[in-house]
Amino acid sequence: MTGSDRPSALDPAIAARLKRGADGLVPAIAQQYDTGEVLMLGWMDDEALHRTLTTGRCTYWSRSRREYWVKGDTSGHTQQVKSVALDCDGDTVLVKVDQVGAACHTGDRTCFDADVLPLGQ
Amino acid sequence: MTGSDRPSALDPAIAARLKRGADGLVPAIAQQYDTGEVLMLGWMDDEALHRTLTTGRCTYWSRSRREYWVKGDTSGHTQQVKSVALDCDGDTVLVKVDQVGAACHTGDRTCFDADVLPLGQ
Repeated sequence: MTGSDRPSALDPAIAARLKRGADGLVPAIAQQYDTGEVLMLGWMDDEALHRTLTTGRCTYWSRSRREYWVKGDTSGHTQQVKSVALDCDGDTVLVKVDQVGAACHTGDRTCFDADVLPLGQ
Repeated sequence: MTGSDRPSALDPAIAARLKRGADGLVPAIAQQYDTGEVLMLGWMDDEALHRTLTTGRCTYWSRSRREYWVKGDTSGHTQQVKSVALDCDGDTVLVKVDQVGAACHTGDRTCFDADVLPLGQ
């Protein structure tokens, strides 16, 4: 059961541990492997996780375009995969990557640079 | 429109920028503010984000228990909020925290320590 109607070559032992949302996806956090910066959050189905594990290039499922999306294929701002881990519940992926250039489509280094919220009352 | 039937005191200017999933929630990444460790991923609705911004304690919506969950209230492993940012699309929250003790219910420091996946074919 992959949670989507898309076929996947993901290792069944990994697929069995994945707990997907109703849309068949899990959130995937991309983190710069050496500085620790949280770069962005994307979404993966089984096949995107399989491609991320086996190609060395971070691959997401685009919810808006409904297609696989190899980060950097258009922008050149690739993410070379250093390590991949599931969380304790199997419902989130953490990918440590080496990010070329800006992770954010706005040109910012990370997707979290521009909108820091005020704390307090 | 909060995307849930739970009332919220979240600043309307922030609520207007939030892009919630079908369940009214956004993923929230908790990161140790000084070391950069990604500790865990939880979920927030508008009110959980409001409480996180205004109480100084990271607060999530528990999808399984369907209730607000102040991290550490049971375990003592609190998360003191240092900063909160939205991503460029308004569909993910990054909370930098000072984590007391283990972030993971298993006793591990982070929820991503135990299940590192093999890379390659």
